[in-house]
Amino acid sequence: MRFLDEPHHDGSALYVSTQTPALGSPVTLRLRAPLAAGVTGVLVRAVHDGEPRYAPASVDPVRTSRPTGGYGRTDVWWQAEIIAVNPVTRYRFLLTTPRGQVWLTAAGLAAHDLTDASDFRLVCHEAPPAWMRDSIVYQIFPDRFARSGVVREVPDWALPRDWDHDPVIPSGPGTSEQFYGGDLDGITARLDHVRSLGADTVYLTPVFPGRSNHRYDAAGFDRIDPLLGGDEALHRLSGALHARGMRLLGDVTTNHTGDSCPWFTAAVSDVHAPEREMYHFDPDTGDYEAWWGVKTLPKLNWGSDLVRRRMRAVLTGWLPPFDGWRVDVANMTGRLGAGDHNHEAAAMLRRALPASAAFIAEHNHDASLDLDRDGWHGTMNYGGFTRPVWAWLRGDDLDLDHFLGVPGGVPLRDGPGTLATFRSFASHMSWRSFVHSWQLLDSHDSPRIRTVTGSRERHLVALGLQATLPGTPMVFAGSEFGLTGINGEHSRTPMPWNRPADQDLATLAGYRDLLGLRRAEPALRHGGLRWLHADADCLVFARETERESLLVCARRAPGTPLRLDRPAEGLYNALDGDVLPGDGPAFGIWRLNG
Amino acid sequence: MRFLDEPHHDGSALYVSTQTPALGSPVTLRLRAPLAAGVTGVLVRAVHDGEPRYAPASVDPVRTSRPTGGYGRTDVWWQAEIIAVNPVTRYRFLLTTPRGQVWLTAAGLAAHDLTDASDFRLVCHEAPPAWMRDSIVYQIFPDRFARSGVVREVPDWALPRDWDHDPVIPSGPGTSEQFYGGDLDGITARLDHVRSLGADTVYLTPVFPGRSNHRYDAAGFDRIDPLLGGDEALHRLSGALHARGMRLLGDVTTNHTGDSCPWFTAAVSDVHAPEREMYHFDPDTGDYEAWWGVKTLPKLNWGSDLVRRRMRAVLTGWLPPFDGWRVDVANMTGRLGAGDHNHEAAAMLRRALPASAAFIAEHNHDASLDLDRDGWHGTMNYGGFTRPVWAWLRGDDLDLDHFLGVPGGVPLRDGPGTLATFRSFASHMSWRSFVHSWQLLDSHDSPRIRTVTGSRERHLVALGLQATLPGTPMVFAGSEFGLTGINGEHSRTPMPWNRPADQDLATLAGYRDLLGLRRAEPALRHGGLRWLHADADCLVFARETERESLLVCARRAPGTPLRLDRPAEGLYNALDGDVLPGDGPAFGIWRLNG
Repeated sequence: MRFLDEPHHDGSALYVSTQTPALGSPVTLRLRAPLAAGVTGVLVRAVHDGEPRYAPASVDPVRTSRPTGGYGRTDVWWQAEIIAVNPVTRYRFLLTTPRGQVWLTAAGLAAHDLTDASDFRLVCHEAPPAWMRDSIVYQIFPDRFARSGVVREVPDWALPRDWDHDPVIPSGPGTSEQFYGGDLDGITARLDHVRSLGADTVYLTPVFPGRSNHRYDAAGFDRIDPLLGGDEALHRLSGALHARGMRLLGDVTTNHTGDSCPWFTAAVSDVHAPEREMYHFDPDTGDYEAWWGVKTLPKLNWGSDLVRRRMRAVLTGWLPPFDGWRVDVANMTGRLGAGDHNHEAAAMLRRALPASAAFIAEHNHDASLDLDRDGWHGTMNYGGFTRPVWAWLRGDDLDLDHFLGVPGGVPLRDGPGTLATFRSFASHMSWRSFVHSWQLLDSHDSPRIRTVTGSRERHLVALGLQATLPGTPMVFAGSEFGLTGINGEHSRTPMPWNRPADQDLATLAGYRDLLGLRRAEPALRHGGLRWLHADADCLVFARETERESLLVCARRAPGTPLRLDRPAEGLYNALDGDVLPGDGPAFGIWRLNG
Repeated sequence: MRFLDEPHHDGSALYVSTQTPALGSPVTLRLRAPLAAGVTGVLVRAVHDGEPRYAPASVDPVRTSRPTGGYGRTDVWWQAEIIAVNPVTRYRFLLTTPRGQVWLTAAGLAAHDLTDASDFRLVCHEAPPAWMRDSIVYQIFPDRFARSGVVREVPDWALPRDWDHDPVIPSGPGTSEQFYGGDLDGITARLDHVRSLGADTVYLTPVFPGRSNHRYDAAGFDRIDPLLGGDEALHRLSGALHARGMRLLGDVTTNHTGDSCPWFTAAVSDVHAPEREMYHFDPDTGDYEAWWGVKTLPKLNWGSDLVRRRMRAVLTGWLPPFDGWRVDVANMTGRLGAGDHNHEAAAMLRRALPASAAFIAEHNHDASLDLDRDGWHGTMNYGGFTRPVWAWLRGDDLDLDHFLGVPGGVPLRDGPGTLATFRSFASHMSWRSFVHSWQLLDSHDSPRIRTVTGSRERHLVALGLQATLPGTPMVFAGSEFGLTGINGEHSRTPMPWNRPADQDLATLAGYRDLLGLRRAEPALRHGGLRWLHADADCLVFARETERESLLVCARRAPGTPLRLDRPAEGLYNALDGDVLPGDGPAFGIWRLNG
């Protein structure tokens, strides 16, 4: 395997003595150098108050004498102590090797100088709550998940649809108005299903009232939409989850409100209203800024003290019943022309939230410049996970006209290109931000992974990557049944509880098995990530802790089998002697020691 | 040549319609795609208030019909208009090619997704003064450049040395005290020499009084050291420079003062002094923070309003006679533990300076995270220029124990590794910050380039790169004579005005020729940069404007000659028919059209 002899470090507990360093505290860093790499000296370079300092590493004989791999290699372990001197302390390794000095950063080895952009990072800002490290998130779009059976009056904006007989309108008139009538008590009644997948955290798209089925056009934040059962139903759902040791996340629009929100109606109708400052009105024309120019979604002005106070009250006021927030359009929040209040908004809101609350930013291209600060805990990692998985596993006949917002459809990329994308994104954020970001195969804003892959087999390979790579898996309800969808609207399929023909039970079993393994195996949640091999059709990596080493092989197509030096225990699919299977599409997980 | 068929864009006027975009204004971006690249579609992706938008580019038939290279290629020119919507607007290109979709960022082509770190950038912050775009800087360490002949009393701290007979003490006792007695009127008398090199800007290391020969331990900022001739001598030097249309830059320590500075003596002697807040005193022990723990250099506290007011008064009060500042230890200024006032300090000071003033940050590893804001105009580009040039052109017998602060000596790197380093640094800052940064072969803080290269031939190749790559050349006085030095102290050689044996006149002629070409050729100052070829021993690139294309070839060793399609006019060294010479070390510049 190609990278087996490469020196390695990452931010996991195997290589860093603490996941929550205190400012000014010493931290021990470890580097694993396979003997074949010929490393004869290691220095740690850490940027200290703006200038690099070098600390020599020494060999740790105890660790070096232990079998740490199961790959037939001897690993030399180096260690050095540095001080986490700044809120974010960047560091890298300088290795002396037979081919000269080589840098090791989070982007891998480099035999030339490079900027600090991909340096490893120790982050001393307040840590995300511990529960997030183990969580598996299940995303629910309330109108489409389940109905409690309570009959409610259909609102004036809505286009009533039959749950099992009316297909979702994917675009054009009616998309935002089609109304299937799912509600919160419907969800509460289905928590056994959620739990059976291994998920422990339910994330609800907006439940504040709006004038659309998606409710991203909030008509206010002071109550839960009665169409969903109102405040009481949310408390019932939250209580049922908490009783099971599970958690509930909300979805809040910090970038904009709906135009029916009383803040906006006050602002738009009276230039002297206190709320006028909450939006961006043109003083001459009276026109106002809106999300992508959509006038029903007026953009909030984070330069306004009133916005800050009111949004802070919203986010803190609903914890509980919520245990944290996914923040809609976090990437644009507070950003307009010359003004950029994004970081202030994120930091102020996070400070206001209890330490136990999750705070995840929607971002659809590259959140790295906004992470590792004292704001968002992580992002929805479309750029660093969803896109590379799609581009590697896309079906041959896929015909989409864009790629999560990038024009031109979903490209077909090979394994090394996929790995390069994984690495590009993971290396531009700290390990902490990486593992607390959500890795998703699809969402209410995207085509379904089943549509993208075009087959159950490739779908399960994608799922395998989601279940085994670092980062918090987020499953969009319905994908466990193999549901399809060509865009975000179309993917918001009413759940097929009563449509057995729409339930792919083999896919469902795969979700239960693979996410169950993630729950069962600490290495899949907390282990380091060491890439071992990438060819066009095959990616192999290890997830490793002090105690165990799990080997993961993802194949999109048949190819040459790879040889291990010894048999290993199959956790998902078996090993043929000491050979990783060459058939594909296939996914396997094996335990190498421990 | 390897990269001749690659699509290209950079931030120069050939590809961007304005170098000084106004916030919110339209900017036309152009992309050159050699026909062989097979580009069939181009989109510009620009990040707009935090989210990417895509603008289609179209072929510009007029430009496409023009011969633009002289390389026997047909170039298809694409263009698109975007809005410079934010103070820094990041953009990249998405190309449709026979091998699928490909991104073009400042780091080059990528067939996989990558973060925004290397995106091109439009910068709408106030532009640096126009004169900086054409300048060539000559650095003078005043104690070692020239004496006026005025006899002055030697101060108590000084160790008098004979200009031509006492060698510089390179380390240990006496290094900071050795005193050769150069002064400002000595410089004024030698401006013909400076001008003869093509330089138009003199940068003086500190001239405020100190208790050392380097004066980075400022004893105050309210007068010029009488040992150098005092305020009047500085005004005479400034007047003489301005009379020639030249400029004068000072050197200011914003990170620290000397411990003899009255601000510090007041602060250290009285805990109730207003100046106490200007430094970082431990409230319990009375100890104070200092640069790298050197107690004669107490660190300024940029959280202090008094520091801000007094330093602002210093920087503005000396313009004129100075035309701007090089800022010492800019990278650490205002940074200590949890506190980071660096950007505030840079932005506040720059706002206070007149728009005509230069403001350059010392930074010895990677300034990119501090550039492209409303502070520093550029950096001393040790990381992105000095180190790669050294590592490519180092002499075989070089024996230094570090590499501009990086332990382990100067590595030997090949052409592709050198290019990778150039690109890594250039791609993490805007074109504006890149071209306004100083590219230096050596300084008062480093070994001399002649010592690093070990030969005149390689020295002239290094000089050729300095004279022809984007960025402001900064020449350290004495290197034009081929002086040597094994470290910063040792390199502060008294100038050999009276030591003909120490004057390498062939090297001097090279400086006059190559820097003279930079003065003469607009393409070398304002042209785009297109890399055309890199092998172990040879780097080839073009500097191009609307009107001309200059081809530059740097060779460190003999190798296979590269073929052009046609003869070209030799500006520096001749062409053998249509073949770029294969002998080396060698450096050549040729004009291809215009």
